[in-house]
Amino acid sequence: MKKNYLFTPGPTHVPAEVALAEAQPSIHHRTPQFSKIFKELSEDLKYLFQTKEGDVFTLASSGTGGMEACVVNVLSKSDKALVLCAGKFGERWNEICGTFGVETVTVDVEYGNAVDPSVVEAKLNENKDIKVVFATQSETSTGVLHDIEAISKIVKKSGALMVVDTITGIGIHKFPFDEWGVDIAVTGSQKGCMLPPGLAFVCVGPNAWPAIEGSDLPKYYWDFKKMRKSLKDATTAYTPSVSLIVAMKKAMDMIKEEGIENVWNRHARIGNATREGVKALGLKLFAGENASNVVTSVVAPDGVDIGAIIKKLRDESGVTFTGGQGEMKGKIFRIGHIGYVDDFDVIVAISAVEKGLCESGFPVELGKGITAAQKALVGNG
Amino acid sequence: MKKNYLFTPGPTHVPAEVALAEAQPSIHHRTPQFSKIFKELSEDLKYLFQTKEGDVFTLASSGTGGMEACVVNVLSKSDKALVLCAGKFGERWNEICGTFGVETVTVDVEYGNAVDPSVVEAKLNENKDIKVVFATQSETSTGVLHDIEAISKIVKKSGALMVVDTITGIGIHKFPFDEWGVDIAVTGSQKGCMLPPGLAFVCVGPNAWPAIEGSDLPKYYWDFKKMRKSLKDATTAYTPSVSLIVAMKKAMDMIKEEGIENVWNRHARIGNATREGVKALGLKLFAGENASNVVTSVVAPDGVDIGAIIKKLRDESGVTFTGGQGEMKGKIFRIGHIGYVDDFDVIVAISAVEKGLCESGFPVELGKGITAAQKALVGNG
Repeated sequence: MKKNYLFTPGPTHVPAEVALAEAQPSIHHRTPQFSKIFKELSEDLKYLFQTKEGDVFTLASSGTGGMEACVVNVLSKSDKALVLCAGKFGERWNEICGTFGVETVTVDVEYGNAVDPSVVEAKLNENKDIKVVFATQSETSTGVLHDIEAISKIVKKSGALMVVDTITGIGIHKFPFDEWGVDIAVTGSQKGCMLPPGLAFVCVGPNAWPAIEGSDLPKYYWDFKKMRKSLKDATTAYTPSVSLIVAMKKAMDMIKEEGIENVWNRHARIGNATREGVKALGLKLFAGENASNVVTSVVAPDGVDIGAIIKKLRDESGVTFTGGQGEMKGKIFRIGHIGYVDDFDVIVAISAVEKGLCESGFPVELGKGITAAQKALVGNG
Repeated sequence: MKKNYLFTPGPTHVPAEVALAEAQPSIHHRTPQFSKIFKELSEDLKYLFQTKEGDVFTLASSGTGGMEACVVNVLSKSDKALVLCAGKFGERWNEICGTFGVETVTVDVEYGNAVDPSVVEAKLNENKDIKVVFATQSETSTGVLHDIEAISKIVKKSGALMVVDTITGIGIHKFPFDEWGVDIAVTGSQKGCMLPPGLAFVCVGPNAWPAIEGSDLPKYYWDFKKMRKSLKDATTAYTPSVSLIVAMKKAMDMIKEEGIENVWNRHARIGNATREGVKALGLKLFAGENASNVVTSVVAPDGVDIGAIIKKLRDESGVTFTGGQGEMKGKIFRIGHIGYVDDFDVIVAISAVEKGLCESGFPVELGKGITAAQKALVGNG
């Protein structure tokens, strides 16, 4: 018997209640029965994004599709955008803008670091014609969290629009859409929402609409104007992913019952305990003080074949960690802790890290990591 | 107790085995465990499309997303396309081409009719510069089936590429991709594949690649070149809809066990029996001799409020038919019979038609429709 432990920054474990909701009998999407669920879900999603004024659209796509939707709706050909790049997902914004022929200016920081809000301010002062700023709340490729509140304040002052990839942020880190003055935010279903992948959610605030109305980039499937019109009728422009939407309603019931602040606090506690466990084993955190509560990225110790350890844990013990992506491959490993995750999951994760390192011949004091995690979780440490 | 009977042209009923596969524990998509399933599924999909030379891509989107993907990959800005329009879905090809600034010529026929292959030939002769022809195998909005074999032969002769929306065709009507010389075909998961909506499958043949390689329309999420590269590594460019993919593998196991020819024959038998049942009640088929085995569209009899009948059957008896779309609203009703459907479903569907009409005050001889259907299904009629 080998249980399945998924410590990845998405997909995450899906609660059985949610999985069974997904498996419920099909309903047709052009019926009042579906519209009732969809309408309730769309209201719940406003709670998730902490918005009263924004509309939240549900897209049948992965998060990347949601990002493309943001770009083609908010920008026009002659616009200039500022993209904040601290890893693979920031770079994705830039790639999508480039695909649609939009000129970009970037702020690039070394992997493992966060973009400094004051650098954003300087760039905006240098480039008065920036129309939209694209940011990433949690840069999953490096485990770094950005200070969206501070960045958003600066962007607002400049008159530009603020678009945030919060794919691994929503339902994990605090993200009050209205309060922070964000204009568009996008997330995916397989992260804080505890669902399988296949849905993207895009929250669009009132200030973004003039740019959307005037946008001349080509769009059909991704058209926000059509989505807004359909949402008013409690439906979608094209066939929605019915089973995932029904499941998402169940996941939202769970999130509402816990309360969004408690969800954020849980992730904060779990992220902190994971970092304490890792540090107690003498390992180095890759993201340092900018570490998110999404994923703990750890520098692979010298002389260790981290790829082999990840593979052995996954194939022999059922524990899935992820390695680094792109240029980070072989240099870091990542412990995800989002969505359907509780305190005991941290103990299991750190236990698996101890086991993997020990069995590879790396000197670890067994119990030291899980003890540190336990102290961080339970007592005053 | 009210059972759920879904007689719509998608979403269709999902077999319990498939729904439960969808509800299985999450696996991470960047693992050999996922790649094994995805590789097997991608091979199974070649069987579904009856292709040896084509590649089948799995997209996280609805069928409309798959259609947009075809347009932006195969066309370039300066190209001219021919679009065959016999209803709402043919018109959708034209709308998408227009969105991306591609010039189109159309063949338009009155709703309820099919495009005549000889008219396609004439149009291609008049417009020697047509690069791509967009067709619809089964026009779900009217219930009409097109002769893709004949049209494809004509298109091939002209040197243009043949792109087919077979969203309600694949797994229902005969569609041998290689044998008919189709270049690109797209389907969705919630039709013949017996899945919930949320996946599109696009089959790309070898002759389409030069156009794809040379295409200058903007694409990121929909990029076939990236999809082909990822497919070679048994993965996807962006996060796939893992739960739907696992479910689709189960659905393909069922389709392979039945055999694709038997799947086509089953739909032919069921489509025929439905039409016989409807005709026996004195009702008129909207699509006449061009009727598909996907959906039986029936002219609403004079003096009957068809919308009210559909609503009552759905809300009180759990039986979902669909009305007409767009300008067909109130004029027809549609009985879907695709995917997870057997002979007894026809009896239930016709029984519900009898019940709905009778209760509305329309004169029907109870039992006449189901008897005709029964005779068509069981004996020599």
